[in-house]
Amino acid sequence: MPVLDQIAHPRDLRGLSEDELTQLAAEIRDLMIRTVATNSGHLGPNLGVVELTLAIHRVFDSPRDRIVFDTGHQSYVHKLVTGRAADFGSLRREGGLSGYPSQAESEHDIVENSHASTALSYADGLAKAYAIRGEDRHTVAVIGDGALTGGMAWEALNNIAIQHDSRLVIVVNDNGRSYTPTIGGLATALTSLRTNPRYETVLDIVKRRLNAVPGVGAAAYDALHAMKKGLKDALAPQGLFEDLGLKYVGPVDGHDRAAMEQALAQAKRFGGPVIVHAITRKGFGYDPAERHEADQFHAPGPFDVQTGAEKPKGLIWTDHFAEHIVQIGERRPDVIGITAAMMHPVGLDKFQQRFPERTFDVGIAEQHAATSAAGLALGGLHPVFAVYATFLNRAFDQVLMDVALHKCGVTFVLDRSGVTGDDGASHNGMWDMSILQVVPGLRLAAPRDVTRMRELLDEAVEVSDAPTVVRFPKGPPPDDIEAIGKAGGCDVLVRDGARDVLVVSVGAMAPIAVDVAARLRDQGIGVTVVDPRWVKPVDPALLELARTHRRVVTIEDNGVVGGVGSVLLQSLAEAGIHTPVRLHGIPQEFLDHAKRAAILEQIGLSPAAIALQAVHDITAEPAPTDRALLDVDGSR
Amino acid sequence: MPVLDQIAHPRDLRGLSEDELTQLAAEIRDLMIRTVATNSGHLGPNLGVVELTLAIHRVFDSPRDRIVFDTGHQSYVHKLVTGRAADFGSLRREGGLSGYPSQAESEHDIVENSHASTALSYADGLAKAYAIRGEDRHTVAVIGDGALTGGMAWEALNNIAIQHDSRLVIVVNDNGRSYTPTIGGLATALTSLRTNPRYETVLDIVKRRLNAVPGVGAAAYDALHAMKKGLKDALAPQGLFEDLGLKYVGPVDGHDRAAMEQALAQAKRFGGPVIVHAITRKGFGYDPAERHEADQFHAPGPFDVQTGAEKPKGLIWTDHFAEHIVQIGERRPDVIGITAAMMHPVGLDKFQQRFPERTFDVGIAEQHAATSAAGLALGGLHPVFAVYATFLNRAFDQVLMDVALHKCGVTFVLDRSGVTGDDGASHNGMWDMSILQVVPGLRLAAPRDVTRMRELLDEAVEVSDAPTVVRFPKGPPPDDIEAIGKAGGCDVLVRDGARDVLVVSVGAMAPIAVDVAARLRDQGIGVTVVDPRWVKPVDPALLELARTHRRVVTIEDNGVVGGVGSVLLQSLAEAGIHTPVRLHGIPQEFLDHAKRAAILEQIGLSPAAIALQAVHDITAEPAPTDRALLDVDGSR
Repeated sequence: MPVLDQIAHPRDLRGLSEDELTQLAAEIRDLMIRTVATNSGHLGPNLGVVELTLAIHRVFDSPRDRIVFDTGHQSYVHKLVTGRAADFGSLRREGGLSGYPSQAESEHDIVENSHASTALSYADGLAKAYAIRGEDRHTVAVIGDGALTGGMAWEALNNIAIQHDSRLVIVVNDNGRSYTPTIGGLATALTSLRTNPRYETVLDIVKRRLNAVPGVGAAAYDALHAMKKGLKDALAPQGLFEDLGLKYVGPVDGHDRAAMEQALAQAKRFGGPVIVHAITRKGFGYDPAERHEADQFHAPGPFDVQTGAEKPKGLIWTDHFAEHIVQIGERRPDVIGITAAMMHPVGLDKFQQRFPERTFDVGIAEQHAATSAAGLALGGLHPVFAVYATFLNRAFDQVLMDVALHKCGVTFVLDRSGVTGDDGASHNGMWDMSILQVVPGLRLAAPRDVTRMRELLDEAVEVSDAPTVVRFPKGPPPDDIEAIGKAGGCDVLVRDGARDVLVVSVGAMAPIAVDVAARLRDQGIGVTVVDPRWVKPVDPALLELARTHRRVVTIEDNGVVGGVGSVLLQSLAEAGIHTPVRLHGIPQEFLDHAKRAAILEQIGLSPAAIALQAVHDITAEPAPTDRALLDVDGSR
Repeated sequence: MPVLDQIAHPRDLRGLSEDELTQLAAEIRDLMIRTVATNSGHLGPNLGVVELTLAIHRVFDSPRDRIVFDTGHQSYVHKLVTGRAADFGSLRREGGLSGYPSQAESEHDIVENSHASTALSYADGLAKAYAIRGEDRHTVAVIGDGALTGGMAWEALNNIAIQHDSRLVIVVNDNGRSYTPTIGGLATALTSLRTNPRYETVLDIVKRRLNAVPGVGAAAYDALHAMKKGLKDALAPQGLFEDLGLKYVGPVDGHDRAAMEQALAQAKRFGGPVIVHAITRKGFGYDPAERHEADQFHAPGPFDVQTGAEKPKGLIWTDHFAEHIVQIGERRPDVIGITAAMMHPVGLDKFQQRFPERTFDVGIAEQHAATSAAGLALGGLHPVFAVYATFLNRAFDQVLMDVALHKCGVTFVLDRSGVTGDDGASHNGMWDMSILQVVPGLRLAAPRDVTRMRELLDEAVEVSDAPTVVRFPKGPPPDDIEAIGKAGGCDVLVRDGARDVLVVSVGAMAPIAVDVAARLRDQGIGVTVVDPRWVKPVDPALLELARTHRRVVTIEDNGVVGGVGSVLLQSLAEAGIHTPVRLHGIPQEFLDHAKRAAILEQIGLSPAAIALQAVHDITAEPAPTDRALLDVDGSR
């Protein structure tokens, strides 16, 4: 009988023998590999934390003690030992286990957000709360070295250092990388901690020197050695964490479960905040992952368990961007590529290979990415910051105040915009087209296909006095749809019959919009479909089109509140144009994980649902009069 | 003739004698004190950087070399030596000098944004740009120790550390405080740098020990001393910055101009990024400021130059909040106060005095404030994070993903919301009511007067499963306006005559709305004025009211795009209610500095302008029909 079958609760781990624990680790690795090979998901990070997670659950008492995983994709092992092994086959499937911790799944789960560098702040709050309430509970935060490059983590460390009563254990899972090797001064500091037992080095130098002095030698050295404590204090703080006043334990081999347990038990006894520095290897225990140079199988698609070969995938939006940005780089020596620790996922890898001196990976640091881009622009260059749409939220203030206020020509390329699906609520890129609407001067483009993506990128990098944004979704792009005409800067995609319904199609919603048009035509309703290409600022041609149609329908892959449709509605109101508008977008709520296509269907972003609504609206409406024209008062 | 009169350009500083430079520093202090005593502004920080700024301008060659001031309120000295001394009397006045650097004012100015912790990222970008372009220019960033507690600064340091070719000099202006003493582990690390020449300490211990060993003594010690370099290397890295791999020069007395020049010249020669650690005193050289315990005259209102006595001020919104949050704290032992380095300015000082163990100053760290608040809430407490509205932008992602997604009961109190005026574009709190609209579950209240602020705060801290926001503006609150009735959760303030115009008044716009009503009544137009109190979510009663009026007018002290009016319009469209809506808010652009009242007038947020527009709209409109009622299709 597999050991894993005996683990219904983490407390069951405590009765296991060494052999059983070793067996369990192997079973967990095997199950994770087989499951991700089928379902896709995060593999490398989870293979790296098997022993570490077992050790935490043996030393601490979840859910009484709280375990917070930073970037929760490293929580699979935790799921398996907290009663969810039997359901693990449903990982990331609709209605199945989430790829992240989930409060709805388990009382052992806390933080569901996939955005990095938050764990220390959560843990600081939890530990403070228990201290204030006089509850004797520990909080354990597990955070990767990559996530420590994020500013939030620094803010938290700065605060934790002075919470002397916090029963808080921070496990730094140091595998030297996020997606790719961790960058910056932090990496230097961690390497120095890993390799430099400084106190011993000093003693060695002293010893060598004293031995060389006639008549001194070993006696003096021994005397000094006895002074160990005094010297250690004089040498302290001995590194980054202790400089800040944080107690430090380590480095510990994170794959030596017993050593991890010993270090964690020591940290637990200490009573104040402690850093436990665990050295791990991403992908540990699965050859194809360990040998995978790019990212140790960070988050593979379906693959062959024996060989590790990933199933071939078609080209996605990112691939087309990756190719085109290199072309732009060839003709524009002032264009700079910036990524926040996701060189390959955002498609800047080819640009980096071609222009290494013009490419910067800033770590998990979207704020710095935006503001250093502003600095680059002030220095005469044109930076392109490629980032997942949801992660741009982290840099909202910087886009507004550092880039836009200073009229800097910076281009933001938002990949994975709109519904992304199986990574759950916090990965959906459904916020950008709303929050960016408030940024003065910013121009936002949503290409409907690859040809438009290329064109709009070309246009974006020509803007030197304002931020520009180009956003596209996850997955493969739709086939190109050619325009049949222009209206201002907008592409007209369909013009059919009477001017009954104007469909404003945003970005990759174009195939849906064209399908809606076909369905309305079948009902004898005249339709115009228009793609604004640049959705901010609002093209005046859209207002004119809206005025001359009976109804407007907007379709966007963004939260419906404050999005493109909403701002169009507002512009119409301001112009005194009262053509009724029906907005279609993502409902303003946190979405459960499922495939993108399934979610779009579910939330009504489908041709059938949109066409049905339009038919209902137009037939419920009284016959057209000349009211719309009378109503234009031209004021303001 | 004053020395200052001879300084038209920073290069003029280089010909001055020591005596003239000392005289100049005195003249600058005198002019700053006299000007701020009249105009108000930032005093303490500028008194602290007089010698430091002179030294920078003598060693570097602005504008060829670039000088970036973090939180630009410390740039007055810089303004005075870059040709703006004669205009200094216009400081912070409409049309006069900005209280921050301003590209429009001078080619010596770069960063206008007042939000802290950005300078290092800008400087990193600028230095990279010059390196890429092969231009031999230096970039100097001046940043306070307080601003180093912000996560962005950490992200930047992490990146700067590996830019070995950057001609970048970071001057850490270490006065041990932001508004109030700098908190956290960073403060510990800086203190240790300031006071612990570690190498010397080790040698002392060794010496004492060896002297105590018979037959060893001085000879051995001297031998060790000769090993200075080897030992120093073994002990290095010697502190926070060197742990990260950054070259460190200091500490230097920031009021010793010659010593500063020497350190800066050394840093300039180095060729890579260097930290120059300057120790300064906020308020230096002006007794009343040095003696001012709360914040060394950080940003006083008008005061008496001789005594430092500030002119008495009336109570402002903040004072009423400060008083009421203490009352809440008395009856609710689970309520926690959080500030990001602004205990007094946001009115948490009284709460701190009363409940020190329940109050946290997290440093300039809005991200951590929000997410640690989520942690506190998950631990069973109810945190209240009081912050200037504009600074909440920094925590947008955390409010959305860490607080709202996890359904945490956290209350955000946004002071200085809406137009703030004389601190310029980046201080206006005109973004919150737009960007927060997208946050699922979040509830947002805008009290119109002090009584409503108390009520809404009481209601907000009762919500335990979602974030709540209470926002109010800068300055004194208006007199209370009592409701004459209710409509759903909304207060009806005026109901006059026919149902011609519905005025939706948001928060402190109520006196303007009531005034508008009086003007419309004088024109024979019937008006209802309603205050929703909670502006998010939209109260269904508002939709009903809108349906039964001929026109809707919304008035809010927030950017007009995506704000309260806009979302109301969107809700009406969704409900199929097509009553025309006229939105009044702050135009979506960066506003120049001036007094709040002057700006409101200028941007048309005045009773006269709003009433005029309403009269125009209603008279241009065709007579009412039953169309509005026919139009309600009830769908969705």
